[in-house]
Amino acid sequence: MRIVLTGVAGFLGSHLAERLLQEGHQVLGLDNFLTGSRANVAALQAYPGFTFVQHDVEDPWPDLGPVDAVLHFASPASPNPRSPFGYPNLPIRTMRTNAWGTYHGLEMARAHAARFMLASTSEIYGDPEVHPQREDYWGHVNPVGERAVYDEAKRFAEAMTMAYHRRHGLDVRIVRIFNTYGPRMRMDDGRVIPNFIVQALRREPLTIYGQGEQTRSFCYVDDLIEGIVRLLFLEAAPFPVNLGNPQEYTILALARLVNELTGNPAGLRFEPAMYRQGDPKRRQPDITRARHLLGWEPTVALPEGLQRTIADFRQRLARGD
Amino acid sequence: MRIVLTGVAGFLGSHLAERLLQEGHQVLGLDNFLTGSRANVAALQAYPGFTFVQHDVEDPWPDLGPVDAVLHFASPASPNPRSPFGYPNLPIRTMRTNAWGTYHGLEMARAHAARFMLASTSEIYGDPEVHPQREDYWGHVNPVGERAVYDEAKRFAEAMTMAYHRRHGLDVRIVRIFNTYGPRMRMDDGRVIPNFIVQALRREPLTIYGQGEQTRSFCYVDDLIEGIVRLLFLEAAPFPVNLGNPQEYTILALARLVNELTGNPAGLRFEPAMYRQGDPKRRQPDITRARHLLGWEPTVALPEGLQRTIADFRQRLARGD
Repeated sequence: MRIVLTGVAGFLGSHLAERLLQEGHQVLGLDNFLTGSRANVAALQAYPGFTFVQHDVEDPWPDLGPVDAVLHFASPASPNPRSPFGYPNLPIRTMRTNAWGTYHGLEMARAHAARFMLASTSEIYGDPEVHPQREDYWGHVNPVGERAVYDEAKRFAEAMTMAYHRRHGLDVRIVRIFNTYGPRMRMDDGRVIPNFIVQALRREPLTIYGQGEQTRSFCYVDDLIEGIVRLLFLEAAPFPVNLGNPQEYTILALARLVNELTGNPAGLRFEPAMYRQGDPKRRQPDITRARHLLGWEPTVALPEGLQRTIADFRQRLARGD
Repeated sequence: MRIVLTGVAGFLGSHLAERLLQEGHQVLGLDNFLTGSRANVAALQAYPGFTFVQHDVEDPWPDLGPVDAVLHFASPASPNPRSPFGYPNLPIRTMRTNAWGTYHGLEMARAHAARFMLASTSEIYGDPEVHPQREDYWGHVNPVGERAVYDEAKRFAEAMTMAYHRRHGLDVRIVRIFNTYGPRMRMDDGRVIPNFIVQALRREPLTIYGQGEQTRSFCYVDDLIEGIVRLLFLEAAPFPVNLGNPQEYTILALARLVNELTGNPAGLRFEPAMYRQGDPKRRQPDITRARHLLGWEPTVALPEGLQRTIADFRQRLARGD
């Protein structure tokens, strides 16, 4: 298949591109390097089936010839307001990447009767009032809150994707991605796993805000990509599908595990909980639908996934990336 | 003030334009006549301060010179899937009018350091789980449901409006408009008050789906416009404000009132409730914020407002509009 993939320079985009290229597909990767990495694209250039197009998906897309599938994975994705790569610092661009980018992708898919896949997110559930979250939960999002620039933009993108399906019979896929981690994550976008690994490798104490009792679930990237590929190549699935790891860890347990795996003797440092508007207390996928539909579930446990991620971070730090 | 107003050919847009023109403002009215009426624009041409620009707000806006305020009131607004003017039949255009239109309006306001007002809607509350709805209620919307093309687009527009306020310090207003009725409503967009009045004036029985026990609240258009104007000219109000009439009526009581006011002897006709996905069972504004902030509350009771609306419909039907 000839596949257009936006956000190809990003963490998930680059892993997905590699997997598709390894399976023999042609990948036309789009990115503007707003939050993605040139190193990720450089690595993909080794595959003859790969073509890179530097383009901002907010703007009308260039003609890329006939395509079989359009996968929209471009978007800033870190909620951290202290990172220049977090969407709180890229509010308008985040909204346009998701709304304009989805529209252009849908129009391209429609023009070529191609399949369209939207990378959506657990953020569409907002600060959920039910646990775990199933796909038919409508979510709990503040439309005028700080995080709305991401949450509402992804909800808009889902709504538009379904509108093209209903109106134009487009073959669509919506994957709601929960927290994912692994090699190639940005070290500096303020998310907890990169933060902890970088601190641990620098032999600094890991910073925990509050008591560290809030829980998170983390999916290893290879597991996630496996689920995405299965969903992409399924006969039909015009509805959202959660992909994530239901196993919950407290932030405290995660920090101890990172220190253990890196042999970091510096321990933990507790700081007062910073109030972050809309920061969900808990989020955990119900993956019943993915289990039944795709026969999928995560296979990489956190200690194993963290070890591989730590090895990657160690290499990149040594190279000075 | 020199005011840009989108959706000027629509029901609310034309009333708002008239009020602003009567107060001596200049109004640059935009519309593409997708759901608006040429007769509404023709009536406004009597005011020397009025300029009409036929334009689709989804597309980049023409240079309109210096402006003091941008008011975005364009959008299909009827949820009725049986009407060609309902947003279920204009899904992509509805989404683009609200997202692209809001963006272009915000950019114009930003370029001129002008005030921006978004016409939002009670639909952002979806099928609410609390009654009445206050502005801090986050709503209950299905992001992949049939009505999402409107609900999620308006939520996106609110989020983007707040992002421009937070990011660029833009002076913004968000009015969440509940059901409104009055002269100049489309007779054919499938909403309950026009449906009933047209049937009554034709001496047909009024069609009630189900038992008619679902409740609605209806605000007369002059009341709504008064609230909008007060909000527009307030010193600052960068948060949503509900405007609507909290008085609830059952559909059955409304139908009987219309028959009484029109002297329609044909009575009622009960049909099986049509399942309409996402149709809210109940929605009622909490207008405490508008009361405190604007000293506003509705003053026109339903029988009085209906009489004026019936008189307008009678004239238009006689003219063959």
